[in-house]
Amino acid sequence: MNMETDVDILIRGGTLLTMSQAMEIVHDPVIGIRDGKILFIDRPGYSTAPIRARETLDASHSIIMPGLVNTHTHLPMAFFRGLADDLPLMDWLNNHIFPAEAKHVNREMVYAGSLLAIAEMILSGTTTFCDGYFYESSVAQAAIDAGVRAVTAQGFIDPPAGGSDTLSKNIQIAERFIDKWSGKSELLTPALFCHSPYTCSPDTLREIKKVSRAARVPYIIHLAETRDEVRIIRERYSVPPVTHLEKTGVLDDATIAVHCVWLEEKELELLAMRDVKVSHNPESNMKLASGVAPVPDMLKKGITVGLGTDGSASNNNLDLLTEMDTAAKIHKVFRMDPTVMHARTVLKMATIEGAKVLNLADRIGSVEAGKCADIILVDTRKPHLTPLYNCYSQLVYAANGADVSTVIINGKVILKERRFLGLDIEDILSRARKIAGEIEKTDR
Amino acid sequence: MNMETDVDILIRGGTLLTMSQAMEIVHDPVIGIRDGKILFIDRPGYSTAPIRARETLDASHSIIMPGLVNTHTHLPMAFFRGLADDLPLMDWLNNHIFPAEAKHVNREMVYAGSLLAIAEMILSGTTTFCDGYFYESSVAQAAIDAGVRAVTAQGFIDPPAGGSDTLSKNIQIAERFIDKWSGKSELLTPALFCHSPYTCSPDTLREIKKVSRAARVPYIIHLAETRDEVRIIRERYSVPPVTHLEKTGVLDDATIAVHCVWLEEKELELLAMRDVKVSHNPESNMKLASGVAPVPDMLKKGITVGLGTDGSASNNNLDLLTEMDTAAKIHKVFRMDPTVMHARTVLKMATIEGAKVLNLADRIGSVEAGKCADIILVDTRKPHLTPLYNCYSQLVYAANGADVSTVIINGKVILKERRFLGLDIEDILSRARKIAGEIEKTDR
Repeated sequence: MNMETDVDILIRGGTLLTMSQAMEIVHDPVIGIRDGKILFIDRPGYSTAPIRARETLDASHSIIMPGLVNTHTHLPMAFFRGLADDLPLMDWLNNHIFPAEAKHVNREMVYAGSLLAIAEMILSGTTTFCDGYFYESSVAQAAIDAGVRAVTAQGFIDPPAGGSDTLSKNIQIAERFIDKWSGKSELLTPALFCHSPYTCSPDTLREIKKVSRAARVPYIIHLAETRDEVRIIRERYSVPPVTHLEKTGVLDDATIAVHCVWLEEKELELLAMRDVKVSHNPESNMKLASGVAPVPDMLKKGITVGLGTDGSASNNNLDLLTEMDTAAKIHKVFRMDPTVMHARTVLKMATIEGAKVLNLADRIGSVEAGKCADIILVDTRKPHLTPLYNCYSQLVYAANGADVSTVIINGKVILKERRFLGLDIEDILSRARKIAGEIEKTDR
Repeated sequence: MNMETDVDILIRGGTLLTMSQAMEIVHDPVIGIRDGKILFIDRPGYSTAPIRARETLDASHSIIMPGLVNTHTHLPMAFFRGLADDLPLMDWLNNHIFPAEAKHVNREMVYAGSLLAIAEMILSGTTTFCDGYFYESSVAQAAIDAGVRAVTAQGFIDPPAGGSDTLSKNIQIAERFIDKWSGKSELLTPALFCHSPYTCSPDTLREIKKVSRAARVPYIIHLAETRDEVRIIRERYSVPPVTHLEKTGVLDDATIAVHCVWLEEKELELLAMRDVKVSHNPESNMKLASGVAPVPDMLKKGITVGLGTDGSASNNNLDLLTEMDTAAKIHKVFRMDPTVMHARTVLKMATIEGAKVLNLADRIGSVEAGKCADIILVDTRKPHLTPLYNCYSQLVYAANGADVSTVIINGKVILKERRFLGLDIEDILSRARKIAGEIEKTDR
């Protein structure tokens, strides 16, 4: 395999967490990357033939691991970070977020906000995200321009909450969005996003699902996020939210249900039976006081659960390393059991399980020969990462996004020693500040 | 005030969160520091006379604020970070932490671990900590050597849990410890730490309290941390833990009660009546599945509550910025109310309220003329801190320790643009790795 091999990138040294099925850990590996793919992973002493590499990365003080997968976010909401916090949910939405969105969301804002959020994600080790918002074509374009892997989902919501007023127009928008972005870039998967069972009619849910099934793309929906939602859906349809979606016929293995905080036992079983994927967003659920999702029960039932940050307005950052910390701890205290949600389990949710949620596990989520080279390096030469007994514990309980030093996406070095090689970060920040200035003027 | 003034350090620009009683925010301030103290804070345009400064810090893209106060930690436990996580509490303690402590805790280990932890704290903006452990003189020495402000508390615990076997010897140790460290450095306050009501007899609690009262130093105790503790104390003394301490006569305004997770209404009132100070350690309480302390109720009753990280074995870092995030969010979700624990409230807990807990509020906890110059700068030129609408929100919900760029303690720049000016960080890390290697060999 590695005799007289030419590679684009060679990574040497450090500790590799493969996140493979066997959770193999390789000390002092030699990793060859060519044409965007992981060509080989050699153990020390294994390789004797010379390898010619265009670029060699010294990882001797680093943890090497798959890039993190953020299974749910709304990138342009970076512009609403800290605009209005600690408020009752309806005050926050109706008096701040919705008015700000109505006034300021446009193509330019979505593109600028997406680049800002993508820069933040790369700086904290996320190499793949799944986004849903308005003007999603601008998010897709930003992802392609930045060289990050993405599932971008065009959002649908019924009047009066927003959106188009006829179903046929929504179907057209959905089909055009998928046509436009299918096959455009190997990094990009278009998808469709129905906002929720309480803002989308059964007809909208069903028809958009038809389009996503025909195109074989993911179908995303906020589901069972709050007790209020459960009450509303019960009032309208006489059944709880998951059951409502089952009756509507939209639950299948390409459905990504986000939040899933308030589930009855029967609904957990429905999610498992239909192989629905779940995106768990603990920090957003905590900040908005939505509740604590029954993730340990989901895992017991074999449901695939990935981790997400949600948008910056309800978090307020996109750092999956600190999100992992919260994900591990909130369930321990909520269950009064320190043994639930091991660090290892949580790190899987943020990598390989997240990849499964997005139907990308054949390409990403672990560092294995043949997969795409989405790899990050975490620099461990820091007091808060010393001593280093257990890499899983260290990443989940001690590290934060700023410990990520180098980010490779699809075989290309995007961030090196925390410097962007492609993105013009100063320009991104100054454009963002300008738009934020306008938003601030009109809030309240 | 500022005519022809000579100062040691001048800080210019940025946004100053004073954390004063009025929570004043000053944009573009000019802050003069001389002889360890804050000499003046000028508004822009106010000052006309020239100021000669030995060093000028440009804070134009920074949030300027008081250094953070960590009201509870066990620094040398940095050596047990990640040694054993996700285990049942008794397995963790009896099979990992206690054996490791029995084998490895000595003066050299405590000193090396303290320097490691101090380096971590400075890098994440903590300028004052309150520590309790064995060989506490080594912690005190490390604090003085590093130039950080500290309350160092000699620990007491009855046999068979450890400690000295006679009360008179404990009293002697307590008196000697206070004698040794009183007046040694303006940065250091010696104190006494009775481990808990379940590991210290009423006699030990009472006699050590007598020594601390005579010397007017803080008296620290873990209190009502777990449901098991409440059960044990009820079995032994027929009353819950706080009531037990009240009967023992050790509750007063110099008592720092750590954790206070399981409190009855009557005990909350006791804490308020005696003006007992509380150290809230949410991440440790979550990770060990101890429970969620009723902090919103404490605040309503006027109890002074500071924030703490606890030791690195149960957190696993000493980052108060991410601890603030957790402190704000855990109470929102636990109460199902997004309006409890505002960002501002939590930031007070990590600064001025923490200073009150340690009886140091006349000197630190806010940036005001006359106070000691314990000041940190947070660099906001980052994607995850952009846009910046609200500094309190940004610090609590979006920032992490790595955003701290510059740290001043007692008028001395300790960290500048994340480089240590005094500490030899490479030496600290390599010594720590050596000791950790020995610990790892003997675990299990």
